[in-house]
Amino acid sequence: MATPPRLTSRRNPLVAQFRRVRDGLDPDRFVVEGVRLLEEAVRCAAEIEVVLVAESLAAESRGGALVKALQDREMDVRFATDEVLDAVSGARTAPGIAAIARRRPSTPEAILTEGGSGLVVLAAGLADPGNLGTLLRAADAAGADGFLTLPDTVSPWNDKAVRASAGSIFRMRVAELRSLEEGAALARTRAYAIVAAAAAAGEPYDRAELAGRLVLVLGSEGFGIAEAVLRSADRFVHVPLRHGVESLNVAVAGAILCFEAARQRGNR
Amino acid sequence: MATPPRLTSRRNPLVAQFRRVRDGLDPDRFVVEGVRLLEEAVRCAAEIEVVLVAESLAAESRGGALVKALQDREMDVRFATDEVLDAVSGARTAPGIAAIARRRPSTPEAILTEGGSGLVVLAAGLADPGNLGTLLRAADAAGADGFLTLPDTVSPWNDKAVRASAGSIFRMRVAELRSLEEGAALARTRAYAIVAAAAAAGEPYDRAELAGRLVLVLGSEGFGIAEAVLRSADRFVHVPLRHGVESLNVAVAGAILCFEAARQRGNR
Repeated sequence: MATPPRLTSRRNPLVAQFRRVRDGLDPDRFVVEGVRLLEEAVRCAAEIEVVLVAESLAAESRGGALVKALQDREMDVRFATDEVLDAVSGARTAPGIAAIARRRPSTPEAILTEGGSGLVVLAAGLADPGNLGTLLRAADAAGADGFLTLPDTVSPWNDKAVRASAGSIFRMRVAELRSLEEGAALARTRAYAIVAAAAAAGEPYDRAELAGRLVLVLGSEGFGIAEAVLRSADRFVHVPLRHGVESLNVAVAGAILCFEAARQRGNR
Repeated sequence: MATPPRLTSRRNPLVAQFRRVRDGLDPDRFVVEGVRLLEEAVRCAAEIEVVLVAESLAAESRGGALVKALQDREMDVRFATDEVLDAVSGARTAPGIAAIARRRPSTPEAILTEGGSGLVVLAAGLADPGNLGTLLRAADAAGADGFLTLPDTVSPWNDKAVRASAGSIFRMRVAELRSLEEGAALARTRAYAIVAAAAAAGEPYDRAELAGRLVLVLGSEGFGIAEAVLRSADRFVHVPLRHGVESLNVAVAGAILCFEAARQRGNR
């Protein structure tokens, strides 16, 4: 492989750019960290603008193969010192490789589409990026057409959410609604049912109709269903829990509902 | 409420004891942090040996009610400075209340029981405590009789696992097997089928027989099924995923399988 240029100073403007992007201040880009995620990025043909990598990682066989794959795709790969990689990383231990990628733009209109599986997930108020990314990953695995969020929901482009998505962020269509009401109105004009996950209200998930066009709404972790969701949902479903257990992790609940919806669609 | 004694020095032997317990060095105890978890501990009548709480938290209505509930149960509650609470906490931001609780002892023999639902979960190599706790919570919610781990699996008593379990650690029977072979032999003498989750091998989960006595084996996050699991399992099941998606989060996969097993048992 060609020897990349070297980045040794934390004062390099690129470091500041990584931080800006990582802090969510750039609406068009996001940070991708770690060998595994960048392998997924390559596999999914994500648009990567710049990559910083530790020389020691590039010297290993897996890291070297990744750097070669990135260079073969004419991406801007640069060596960086551990100090620089620590400065750009959001992880406690910097994984030795970090990149700035372009977000794949999408819209609610494109996600609430005519074709596809008819399953759309709406994250309404999740605060934990790990939960959000795990839910996104499950929605992808279950064949959902896309993933919607509300303004009060943690960003899917947050670095922890990206990590938890395990690459699904490169594949899934993702868009933010201005409000639940806007999303509900759009969904209804396109004949989607709006079904919200509840702790105990509505039907048990496995007796509910989840086969048609469906916007599945998952609320926040600790506070249950928001008022707006109560007003906007057509129906509620719940996962029956053993007596004494209050709730499931929100990503787990969402995954169970997504896979029930996939099953009712004939389990592609 | 009675005014608790005050703990102001990080050199107090209790601080060292909290750390020992938090580091997993005490086989009989574990650390419980945060208002919500301690409320669950009270609800589940967990045996709590000592509680450290910030005066500011005890002055709030929810924190005060918790402290009163703990004192009413004659638990040893002490005020502690933020410095002390930071020193005993495993969290980045100490939640202001921490306790040492006794582990509820159990055994593989008690878990692979005659009565109960017949569903037992075996965590075989999970490394992430958040995943382990989330899986434990899902197993509890789905009505499993208990939760087994292997020596190479992260401890369910790890503070992050305890947090992710959201209180299930107080309710579920948990025990460590000396080896998978030992567990498999015991399970077979008691007529349990050993069914392992796989990425693609075996039957789709919703067509597999999961209704009878069942030890459901979940492997490690990144490495799939270990050799020992391959040798010990009677059958494999998988969750069908959209083309291009490699895997699910292990806790999500385990939850989907547990709830399918619950469904086949008639969804209590």
